[in-house]
Amino acid sequence: MIPYDLPRRAVAEALGTGLLVATVVGSGIMAETLTHDTALALLGNTLATGAMLVVLITILGPVSGAHFNPAVSLVFCLNRSLPPRDLPAYLVAQFAGGIAGTVAAHLMFALPVLEIATKLRTGPAQWFSEVVATFGLVAVILAGLRFERRAAPWLVGLFITAAYWFTASTSFANPAVAVARSLTDSFSGIRPADLPGFIVAELLGALIALALMGWLLRPETIERSEPLKAKP
Amino acid sequence: MIPYDLPRRAVAEALGTGLLVATVVGSGIMAETLTHDTALALLGNTLATGAMLVVLITILGPVSGAHFNPAVSLVFCLNRSLPPRDLPAYLVAQFAGGIAGTVAAHLMFALPVLEIATKLRTGPAQWFSEVVATFGLVAVILAGLRFERRAAPWLVGLFITAAYWFTASTSFANPAVAVARSLTDSFSGIRPADLPGFIVAELLGALIALALMGWLLRPETIERSEPLKAKP
Amino acid sequence: MIPYDLPRRAVAEALGTGLLVATVVGSGIMAETLTHDTALALLGNTLATGAMLVVLITILGPVSGAHFNPAVSLVFCLNRSLPPRDLPAYLVAQFAGGIAGTVAAHLMFALPVLEIATKLRTGPAQWFSEVVATFGLVAVILAGLRFERRAAPWLVGLFITAAYWFTASTSFANPAVAVARSLTDSFSGIRPADLPGFIVAELLGALIALALMGWLLRPETIERSEPLKAKP
Amino acid sequence: MIPYDLPRRAVAEALGTGLLVATVVGSGIMAETLTHDTALALLGNTLATGAMLVVLITILGPVSGAHFNPAVSLVFCLNRSLPPRDLPAYLVAQFAGGIAGTVAAHLMFALPVLEIATKLRTGPAQWFSEVVATFGLVAVILAGLRFERRAAPWLVGLFITAAYWFTASTSFANPAVAVARSLTDSFSGIRPADLPGFIVAELLGALIALALMGWLLRPETIERSEPLKAKP
Repeated sequence: MIPYDLPRRAVAEALGTGLLVATVVGSGIMAETLTHDTALALLGNTLATGAMLVVLITILGPVSGAHFNPAVSLVFCLNRSLPPRDLPAYLVAQFAGGIAGTVAAHLMFALPVLEIATKLRTGPAQWFSEVVATFGLVAVILAGLRFERRAAPWLVGLFITAAYWFTASTSFANPAVAVARSLTDSFSGIRPADLPGFIVAELLGALIALALMGWLLRPETIERSEPLKAKP
Repeated sequence: MIPYDLPRRAVAEALGTGLLVATVVGSGIMAETLTHDTALALLGNTLATGAMLVVLITILGPVSGAHFNPAVSLVFCLNRSLPPRDLPAYLVAQFAGGIAGTVAAHLMFALPVLEIATKLRTGPAQWFSEVVATFGLVAVILAGLRFERRAAPWLVGLFITAAYWFTASTSFANPAVAVARSLTDSFSGIRPADLPGFIVAELLGALIALALMGWLLRPETIERSEPLKAKP
Repeated sequence: MIPYDLPRRAVAEALGTGLLVATVVGSGIMAETLTHDTALALLGNTLATGAMLVVLITILGPVSGAHFNPAVSLVFCLNRSLPPRDLPAYLVAQFAGGIAGTVAAHLMFALPVLEIATKLRTGPAQWFSEVVATFGLVAVILAGLRFERRAAPWLVGLFITAAYWFTASTSFANPAVAVARSLTDSFSGIRPADLPGFIVAELLGALIALALMGWLLRPETIERSEPLKAKP
Repeated sequence: MIPYDLPRRAVAEALGTGLLVATVVGSGIMAETLTHDTALALLGNTLATGAMLVVLITILGPVSGAHFNPAVSLVFCLNRSLPPRDLPAYLVAQFAGGIAGTVAAHLMFALPVLEIATKLRTGPAQWFSEVVATFGLVAVILAGLRFERRAAPWLVGLFITAAYWFTASTSFANPAVAVARSLTDSFSGIRPADLPGFIVAELLGALIALALMGWLLRPETIERSEPLKAKP
């Protein structure tokens, strides 16, 4: 069931979250350096992030489950896929790995090790965007694991590809990535003051998905079999 | 055969159509906000829509069949894949879910809840485009389910990716999505007055595909075996 | 082995070549209408063509083999995958289907039914590009069918996606598509006078691929087993 | 285990590296010819390279392992996947094939057969980028072969797609490709004087990946079984 020990799983979570954040932040810096067209910059940012998600979830999923996201780890705790005693190690690995990812991106582009983001991202429309984005992400993960486990990395990568464009917030959908992105003053940054609104919205979206998919994915046949048992 | 009850299937159709429309409308608003180049806007719109279709059909297909489209539900009724008594629930879910998707996109981008589209889309070239687009979509679905059921979500996503570019109408190919898009005055909108032409063309394309693929996909061996049965 | 009769296979070849050409020509018209940036136009053209190839080869491959290309049908004749008596029907279907595809694209964009292309594509660099493009295409098909039959549609779609960009000719690699593209005076056109150079180069590239891959894909073990047979 | 003889494997390595370099260099030339927007040029370059990697690794992997990269061949020597006596043939094939790829790209675009690149790529940020890029590439290959062998071509193509954007060096990650790119004075070139820094960084990244993944991918169960063996 869980063939890898906690240190290895925690390293996998840190490595995965780190490479994910390095991709998000690094491709944002590359894109805004190369063009003045913001749609084109978002396209480069999207392509890199979506591709990297497929890769990281495929290669690290068998080790740690490839959450890379405190909202996802929380959901897996609640539906008993992750033992609660492992949750602190996962969360520490995700937040620390995410910040290391920002550092790596900054070093690759010869920027200061860490910065304070000044990009304003707040207000009800942004928060609602994050609810929708994280709802969708968690719904995709829960249904994907149920019906097409091996396609799950693709589903997550494709969902985020779409969500970068159809949500007004470009879909952070991840508290650890949001914190890491508050430490870069570039294309993908977010003001530290705007973090609480984003994180609350993300957790809310995750919980709604857990509740709705819990009902939706329970097949009729289970319900029908209950009266059968009561027959004799 | 149909393990999920009708309420769950209807919710799946509404959720899927809603997220699809939110993606089409939302990514269109995002794109036209970020760039003045219409090709680039269409590229962002295409990428998001194609990616989301793969995701939604994969995760909701096992629940409801993932039609998200009255033309597809009609075809599945005609070829006996969907019981006619379920059709009304599917259609209501698709139209209602689609409109909810426009509302969600507008709320995410801080626009009025609903608008009346002013974008003109009419004339024989547009109608012929919709015939071709829906013909292709239904042909892809019927042949995909026949030969590569598990690849069907990818085939639909890739077909629509191509059809956004090779048809003059950018391939609506879906009456419920068309109605939902008449309620946004943005990149992906369509004047309500232009809906009837689009919907008639879409149904026509779907029926042509049903007829042609019904003949094309019937293998020679079946025909040859008929005289054999008549032999003695 | 060949469960579908020749009429169905010919219709599949015509339908597939037609939709492929409609995609190439239509997306080219759409792209040059929407932007003045030629790289962006080529990007839209590439995305649509690559996506459509994956779809068409997946859904029509089980019927006709999904050649859609006289150079490919010729190679399959030479390596005994296609009975020579079926070749004329395949070629007629491909050339007729291709021209119908140009007509369909023109009708969708309200252009004259057929035009004479004026786009100049000639000279040794263009011809060498077509040799490389068709060599690559046929090599990919032969090795793909050998090692990963079910991935073959993806391999062809991805190879053409790359070849649109890395060859100076944007990789026609298909005599039937080349003829159909000589009848549109738009982004993807080619002067009729330039067709012979392209077609000769394409057939040459296909034959080189057949020869090289015939040697390369024959494993060592087969050669080693020959002396064994000669032992006693 | 190794059904193909060394000549065939060497030809596969040369052919693959050649087509890869022709794609990288050729699509770079095409892109900078068509647009003045560097982000758009990188997008065309990325799309072609990522797509071609998936194709080449799928079709040549069963013949030679599809390294196309001296750093990868070295890693496979160190972890005993490639017999050391085969290494020289692999390296010669990769460097020679790579240079032939530059020649092919130049001939397709009517440029001089070979040029000396003048594009400056040096400094700690560039070198660190190459360490990260090659670390990631080798980690993806090792974990991909371990968990999802058939998806490995996709993982490599997607990783490089992301790495073109998230590293400041656009991710060469390959000494043979780097040398071949020093012979073109176009979009993808690199000054010969900058090669040593890149190659040292690439080998360093590859060795770090070999060490880290060697630890990370060893499951806990193996360690637990060791005391069991020592029991009696």
